[in-house]
Amino acid sequence: MAFTVVGKSVARVDAIAKVTGQAKYASDFLERNMLVGKILRSPYAHALVKNIEVSKAKALPGVEAVLTYKDVPQNKFATAGHPYALDPKHRDKEDRTILTNKARFVGDAIAAVVATDELIAEEALKLIEVEYEVLEPVFDPEEAMREGAPKIHEDCERNIVSSTGYEIGDIEEAFKEADYIFEGQYETSIVQHCQLENHVACAYVDSDGRIVIITSTQIPHIVRRIVAQALGIPWGRVRVIKPYVGGGFGSKQDVCLEPLVAAMTLAVGGRPVKLELSREECMIDTRTRHAIRYKIKTGVSKDGKLIGMHIIAISNTGAYASHGHSILMAGGSKFRVLYPMKALKYEPYTVYTNLPVAGAMRGYGSPQITFAVECHLEDIARKLNMDPIEFRKKNLVQVGYVDPLNGNVVRSCGIRECIEKGKELIKWEEKKERYKNQTGYRRRGLGMACFSYASGTYPAGQEIAGARIVLNQDGSIQLQIGAAEIGQGSDTVFAQMAAEILGIPVDMVHVISTQDTDITPFDTGAYASRQTYITGMAVRKAALEVKEKILDFACSMTGIPAHALDIKDQNIVYKDTGNVVMPLSEVALRSYYDLVSAQPITSDVSNNARVNAYTFGATFVEVEVDIRTGKIEILEIYNVHDSGKIINPQLAEGQVHGGVSMGIGYALLEQMLFDEKTGKPLNNNLLDYKLPSIMDIPEIGVAFVETFEPTGPFGNKSLGEPPVLPVAPAIRNAVLDATGVAFNRLPLYPQRVFEKFKEAGLI
Amino acid sequence: MAFTVVGKSVARVDAIAKVTGQAKYASDFLERNMLVGKILRSPYAHALVKNIEVSKAKALPGVEAVLTYKDVPQNKFATAGHPYALDPKHRDKEDRTILTNKARFVGDAIAAVVATDELIAEEALKLIEVEYEVLEPVFDPEEAMREGAPKIHEDCERNIVSSTGYEIGDIEEAFKEADYIFEGQYETSIVQHCQLENHVACAYVDSDGRIVIITSTQIPHIVRRIVAQALGIPWGRVRVIKPYVGGGFGSKQDVCLEPLVAAMTLAVGGRPVKLELSREECMIDTRTRHAIRYKIKTGVSKDGKLIGMHIIAISNTGAYASHGHSILMAGGSKFRVLYPMKALKYEPYTVYTNLPVAGAMRGYGSPQITFAVECHLEDIARKLNMDPIEFRKKNLVQVGYVDPLNGNVVRSCGIRECIEKGKELIKWEEKKERYKNQTGYRRRGLGMACFSYASGTYPAGQEIAGARIVLNQDGSIQLQIGAAEIGQGSDTVFAQMAAEILGIPVDMVHVISTQDTDITPFDTGAYASRQTYITGMAVRKAALEVKEKILDFACSMTGIPAHALDIKDQNIVYKDTGNVVMPLSEVALRSYYDLVSAQPITSDVSNNARVNAYTFGATFVEVEVDIRTGKIEILEIYNVHDSGKIINPQLAEGQVHGGVSMGIGYALLEQMLFDEKTGKPLNNNLLDYKLPSIMDIPEIGVAFVETFEPTGPFGNKSLGEPPVLPVAPAIRNAVLDATGVAFNRLPLYPQRVFEKFKEAGLI
Repeated sequence: MAFTVVGKSVARVDAIAKVTGQAKYASDFLERNMLVGKILRSPYAHALVKNIEVSKAKALPGVEAVLTYKDVPQNKFATAGHPYALDPKHRDKEDRTILTNKARFVGDAIAAVVATDELIAEEALKLIEVEYEVLEPVFDPEEAMREGAPKIHEDCERNIVSSTGYEIGDIEEAFKEADYIFEGQYETSIVQHCQLENHVACAYVDSDGRIVIITSTQIPHIVRRIVAQALGIPWGRVRVIKPYVGGGFGSKQDVCLEPLVAAMTLAVGGRPVKLELSREECMIDTRTRHAIRYKIKTGVSKDGKLIGMHIIAISNTGAYASHGHSILMAGGSKFRVLYPMKALKYEPYTVYTNLPVAGAMRGYGSPQITFAVECHLEDIARKLNMDPIEFRKKNLVQVGYVDPLNGNVVRSCGIRECIEKGKELIKWEEKKERYKNQTGYRRRGLGMACFSYASGTYPAGQEIAGARIVLNQDGSIQLQIGAAEIGQGSDTVFAQMAAEILGIPVDMVHVISTQDTDITPFDTGAYASRQTYITGMAVRKAALEVKEKILDFACSMTGIPAHALDIKDQNIVYKDTGNVVMPLSEVALRSYYDLVSAQPITSDVSNNARVNAYTFGATFVEVEVDIRTGKIEILEIYNVHDSGKIINPQLAEGQVHGGVSMGIGYALLEQMLFDEKTGKPLNNNLLDYKLPSIMDIPEIGVAFVETFEPTGPFGNKSLGEPPVLPVAPAIRNAVLDATGVAFNRLPLYPQRVFEKFKEAGLI
Repeated sequence: MAFTVVGKSVARVDAIAKVTGQAKYASDFLERNMLVGKILRSPYAHALVKNIEVSKAKALPGVEAVLTYKDVPQNKFATAGHPYALDPKHRDKEDRTILTNKARFVGDAIAAVVATDELIAEEALKLIEVEYEVLEPVFDPEEAMREGAPKIHEDCERNIVSSTGYEIGDIEEAFKEADYIFEGQYETSIVQHCQLENHVACAYVDSDGRIVIITSTQIPHIVRRIVAQALGIPWGRVRVIKPYVGGGFGSKQDVCLEPLVAAMTLAVGGRPVKLELSREECMIDTRTRHAIRYKIKTGVSKDGKLIGMHIIAISNTGAYASHGHSILMAGGSKFRVLYPMKALKYEPYTVYTNLPVAGAMRGYGSPQITFAVECHLEDIARKLNMDPIEFRKKNLVQVGYVDPLNGNVVRSCGIRECIEKGKELIKWEEKKERYKNQTGYRRRGLGMACFSYASGTYPAGQEIAGARIVLNQDGSIQLQIGAAEIGQGSDTVFAQMAAEILGIPVDMVHVISTQDTDITPFDTGAYASRQTYITGMAVRKAALEVKEKILDFACSMTGIPAHALDIKDQNIVYKDTGNVVMPLSEVALRSYYDLVSAQPITSDVSNNARVNAYTFGATFVEVEVDIRTGKIEILEIYNVHDSGKIINPQLAEGQVHGGVSMGIGYALLEQMLFDEKTGKPLNNNLLDYKLPSIMDIPEIGVAFVETFEPTGPFGNKSLGEPPVLPVAPAIRNAVLDATGVAFNRLPLYPQRVFEKFKEAGLI
């Protein structure tokens, strides 16, 4: 299909605003005499508040309010950024209150103050006297599951949030049928999103008593609902405004601050309050990525076909459920389409511990399971003495495959081409040959890993999106979408889509980037790599409706049937010859001012997408390992993606760069550390937490295999999260290739690598 | 028709916000480092700028830009707040540039500065050196029309903006047929709106180079167009935001500041600039009410029937055309339906002079002509020795009357009932009898006057309005209208209309009061008393569409046909029995979250109303005149209105109170004074300009005769402007009744009254 604007690397619509500092973020929200909120956090990982005395804090001049659990509604609510479910069984676990009298991790919010400035607020926190009854904490999920383990939530048996899983086929039968059985254990670490912009929200009460929240969120419409639920008020009495957001990566697909800042403004008669977390607070009291331990058992036939797999996954969800089990289930669902097997048993356990709350993070359970499975398959291939790539290829999915559990169909699949492209880019065969017989302390190796992922959450979640278009008198448009631009570039691709259909240049599409639940078409938000695919459908629908109205109006002016007309380069043209009938602006102007037939042209559509599209890809990496120091250097790395049609190659490449960097950090450097006895965070700051810097990241190669996904609005599929998925296992597999040592736990940081090499006798 | 919410005096939706100071006005717009704009004004009424030297001003630290006519586009544009006309012949006169090198009145904008604060800006103005060539000015329109008078605009013959008029029937034939011929001359003064909030606008350039203007305006969508025209850029590249407005009365139905503030921000690289006029500046350089001189000749039959009338109207439009001739034509059109005559010749002249620019003001030409005609009829009745009320009643319009020029139809008319009600309230007969033979220096008298007016501008102007509704999950709605709340209460009546149709209480209607041309449904704005009638139709249409969607959704849930359902008290009910089927919120919730059929319910409608509705009423007043001092005291005053169905009696009463106060000021106190030689304003401040204070205003009686206007969205017709129309002539007629002295020139301030009494031999 030939496109004019779609498929071009047009500049981001927000580029200038962002590089000049003109773009407004939540923290830029200006109000006269805005108050400042601060949170008092538990120093204990597990403790009861026996007594809390706030009179001294209240007496401090400049303190406007002090809040404890006694001062806020005690409605239990869930914070996960999911669409509301009519079916109570499908709702997230409601285990939070705005403030708690039982601390469940070091940093849990016990009390809060609102003061005229930050220093007074900090001072007031010190004046709050809390008497704790310290309880025994538990940090490891398997320990937390044991009978007699400390009980973190009263209503929860053995601290298991959920253990709902699935079984496809009969796993025991499959194992009987298999020629070989392999087992492995793989484990990922707790990491943090480290998005550029910390969590911040401002709130005030407007003229008719409604609460207005300006917040850095991925999910404005969901924030609205959850704040109302937390406060126990009608949803329509909350208004959420999302300005530009400086990154989220899932951390802001959760309602972390908003109920509290709402309670704060209510406590001070509706005056504006700003609640802004420091980086240190963000790292412990927003969300982390779940550390998950996998125990995998796999049956394989002699000819290298996967017969059956049994995965036990134990996820450390921390102190509150948040997205908890959804993440374990999403990971357990999205990976399985890549290598269809006769039998697959997935046995997941999402478990509370006294650590910070884990939640959504780019990939949403998939980086973890992709690490486990792609390491496991590599290990099997090597044990079978098969080429690991050939082994994978034997088991890859085909177009037409229907997932037996959710019914999703593989309608486009370029994974084979991705693998070929990756091999070619990295010169796989040539280097394999060259590195065959290495000796010495610096050894090179090649690794790869594949992934499958979905585009949105259907059918697990509802996929509704809205778009509204207003045609201006000059033929330009405003495009209002409910979906959230959080730095990923969605506003730009939506502008391209609308421009494509309406025959205008992108700079005539004025995207209203600010989402405001009062007026923005409903959309559940930025997550699950859904926006270009799901919201794209709504944008397409809205633009087509506007186009139809324009052509109908042109027909009423000229008599030429609408079906014979099209819009090209801002002109109404004959569809067949391209001859210009009149400028688009003439139709637009008349649609406003014709004395008889005026009817300004707009559309306001919602689209309930009951479809999903699988996306595929692979990482190919070459490493050099210094056996003496445990240092792993990435020499070359390529991500090759089948994301269907690429809407904006440059933005797409940017997404891949970001994802690969994140994957490299995940593979080699990042982990949140806690004191083993007390659960106190040891590195919740950007000095001690080893986020890769630009010096740690090599040049990243990116390639796309452009399939055409028939359900995508322009043949496109997801791309936001996928790039992170296959990076860590590919690096791990390359290290294995170089050294013969298999690392089954992330990250591969020098100390761990060095110790393992010693253990393996390499040193 | 029985209504639930319509017809009730619900509290203003913005009441709390406004009395607590929470409501945001344009001047409350906050930006970091906002610059300040100031205007250099001509000290001469008529002068050419020979030379202008700005280097000293530019050199002053803190001055960011100095602008003269050389620095701004010289596109000629019209400032009147009218919908754009596709037909060039129907466009307003384009006689302005953003800054001028020819001053046409004292205060004309010659140059402007942008500086970091107000004091520096003021200082910089003093450093601009202008060399003027002073020209002869002309202030009286009849003098300005003479051959050889000073030419104010090069392309304008005899300074006449327009003299287009009309003739119904044959006036000369009518005069021949008449038994009596009467002549009179009547004259009104220049007055100023004196709305609470001065003119203010802020502007900046946003991320994609678009100009954003936050302005106190009645006409945001029109401002957008005119700023673009003035700058010569596509209309879509301007965005106008209208926050709460502190009154306009027509002064803000004109584009006074916005092109200049836009030029200012462009001059400083798009940084935010605020341009706020002082009261003194507002009074000379926004708009005034046209002073109009009427020469009327009327033919009457023996039995008191009006046969024909010839009106010559000479309007002083000041230095620029603005609404100029439209006002003279509107006045000449709306009054004529009250007393249909065989022949009516209207001969209007809108004339430039070297005085401040006259423009739209509450009543838009009708207060002037109503004064002239209602004085003239009173005089005729008295000369004929007829009861003035009986004389009027003989000539009043009947339902079914069709205006021969514009085709508008009188579909509802309660003028006779208004007159009866007024007589009754003021005890007309009884007091007439009592005051028959007064002597002494304090004499009482009764007067009355009638009016007719329209609801909107159709067919002279296009009447398009838009409304958008979003149904929330709890059954509450957001209502977004393009029409402008400027203090008149329109948001509240729109909320009532939507609530009425949707069966919800008003506090579940969240009105988005801020208009933003990017996202607000298109509406031409607040003028011509159009909003409740014209925009009301759009609100009704939008609410009905939402209701239909709700009932269809309820049908899909229950199987009960939508036609059997209704919404009452937030419940879906059986239409016939009222039995509850389910809560509205259940439908609303499901419309968002049903996995299969979810489709959030919204409407986004535009309505092109090709209809108009005549509204009627009368003022009845009792005065006591102190002949020795010329002081006129109003003892009782009643306005009785037929505005169709009254949507909110308390708000309606408020409108009448405001209009009557304005009418009393017009009758007794207000006039802008200028030095006769130089044209310098003598009283452009609220100390010297005699706006009536609360001490000058008596208790105002208000009554409504509620007809049901079939074309009104709820049987309603206009009410915003009408209250001011009949007040001045009624007072004048009462003074005549008390003293026998006819005042034919406004205002009746003590000095003029005293002199005239002396002349008449009363003193």
